Amino acid sequence: MTPPQLLIVGSIGLDTIETPRATVERVLGGAAVFAASAACRFAAPAVVGVVGDDFPPEHGALLRGQGVDLTCVDKKPGKTFFWHGRYEEDMNNRVTLDTQLGVFGEFAPRIDPPYDRIATVFLANIHPQLQLDVLDAMRGSPLTAMDSMNYWIRTTPDLLKKVIARVSLFFVNDEEARMLTNRQSIRSAADALLSMGPEWVVIKRGDAGAGLFTRDAEFFVPAIPLRQVVDPTGAGDTFAGGMMGYLARRGGRSFAVMKQAAVAGTVMASFCVEDFSLNRLACLGKQDIVERIGRIRDLCAFDPLDF
Amino acid sequence: MTPPQLLIVGSIGLDTIETPRATVERVLGGAAVFAASAACRFAAPAVVGVVGDDFPPEHGALLRGQGVDLTCVDKKPGKTFFWHGRYEEDMNNRVTLDTQLGVFGEFAPRIDPPYDRIATVFLANIHPQLQLDVLDAMRGSPLTAMDSMNYWIRTTPDLLKKVIARVSLFFVNDEEARMLTNRQSIRSAADALLSMGPEWVVIKRGDAGAGLFTRDAEFFVPAIPLRQVVDPTGAGDTFAGGMMGYLARRGGRSFAVMKQAAVAGTVMASFCVEDFSLNRLACLGKQDIVERIGRIRDLCAFDPLDF
Repeated sequence: MTPPQLLIVGSIGLDTIETPRATVERVLGGAAVFAASAACRFAAPAVVGVVGDDFPPEHGALLRGQGVDLTCVDKKPGKTFFWHGRYEEDMNNRVTLDTQLGVFGEFAPRIDPPYDRIATVFLANIHPQLQLDVLDAMRGSPLTAMDSMNYWIRTTPDLLKKVIARVSLFFVNDEEARMLTNRQSIRSAADALLSMGPEWVVIKRGDAGAGLFTRDAEFFVPAIPLRQVVDPTGAGDTFAGGMMGYLARRGGRSFAVMKQAAVAGTVMASFCVEDFSLNRLACLGKQDIVERIGRIRDLCAFDPLDF
Repeated sequence: MTPPQLLIVGSIGLDTIETPRATVERVLGGAAVFAASAACRFAAPAVVGVVGDDFPPEHGALLRGQGVDLTCVDKKPGKTFFWHGRYEEDMNNRVTLDTQLGVFGEFAPRIDPPYDRIATVFLANIHPQLQLDVLDAMRGSPLTAMDSMNYWIRTTPDLLKKVIARVSLFFVNDEEARMLTNRQSIRSAADALLSMGPEWVVIKRGDAGAGLFTRDAEFFVPAIPLRQVVDPTGAGDTFAGGMMGYLARRGGRSFAVMKQAAVAGTVMASFCVEDFSLNRLACLGKQDIVERIGRIRDLCAFDPLDF
């Protein structure tokens, strides 16, 4: 097995999801799971997480079959993290009907050697203190990235800013970016976030695409216009996972590689939402990915203007 | 003077606008004005509209100085259309504080020969019946485009759909597209709109860019990420005007030309919002426009992925 190139720390869960057209119960989910399932197309990911003794063994087998290293996933007595949500007709809005933290409530990331020397680290959305603990545990100078959510912005903003100050890349959606910076212009919000420490900020805008920002450069990748979205759960994690997987593979931090990585993330997210859980992500061929990269390139291509 | 290549039918108004940082009173505005001010950079526009006897002559002079033909603008006894709005801190939301239709309330588009033979027609947001009247008045087979607003979707949906069925190009924002079609996916909403008649649909998404759709092709142009938006009033009209001006110049209906036109519209809209009224649009040089076209191209450019 390839030695892991990307460390992903985050939730592993079971999701019950209601959409206007279908309902699925206790399917495999969690930010680290979606991220790993996207990243594994580009690099070998290892997940740091925790599951309960109710976690179906076939889920672990599915991930391992995709080349995901689960050595740092603990199995604890108790229940696996469970989330029950319902999407409105407008698939952009969702209501949480139930959340049961289970063993995830006591999650303490365990990063045994040699996993503490992995060169690329993605901190999915977890308590900012745990994100700091992971950064402290890492050796060497890894490329680090983080995601978060509005809950931590509201409840632990100072701690969250400490993490933001220490990572290379910050993933955030447009609403959270405005909430964190009190600025309305996306470019201006990106400036404010960059001034908190990260070298790069990625602002996700759902089906409108994503922007990648440094202090003096920017890149925009549109989302692929899909005729039907089955389930948007995990799209943001999949985007980040695809991007981090590509960065881990290329080992680069140049703007050119960051742009390619953002395209990789966008493509993976477009597959994620086409079915529930990992149903679509897990059965992709390389050609599927290559075809969508071409679609993104074509989507924004235009001839020189004549006037 | 160049014979007009683009006919623009719509409002000419005076706007009082409050933003979090500044207020301006009774400045030149109106959909036809913004559209013409953008279109004139690519083709010679003629405006069909009406003003009251309070309309300051310097506004007419400004437009004529940009090459806008005002022969079909009537001056009637009474007040020019007046709008008073206030933008929230989030510049995407605005409140209308006052609207006085004045002479615009009795607007009946007058299209004298030879203006009825202009080959490209843009119907800005006005009562759908007036849009139909203009289509009936035109001779030849012009390329026709229309804009509208949520008010007409709510109050005269059947009449609106009659206009949509007769134009080549329909401009709509994402919220209106969803309202009109009851579909959430942008691509799916575009399909539904195309099935109503138009050959092309442009779905505007504000600072997230715009999508151009045919039944089997699509193009996405991102908005230029601006650090500060002074006043978004007229951005949509400016986008449409720039796009129609480019189409009028090129006389083409190919997808390649449509894509270039969408880029032209995006560039003009990015200038519009940088100041109130036509303050920025009226003083542009060609090099300013060329520079921003290059910025849009760079914004989405990425090297082939290696994995």
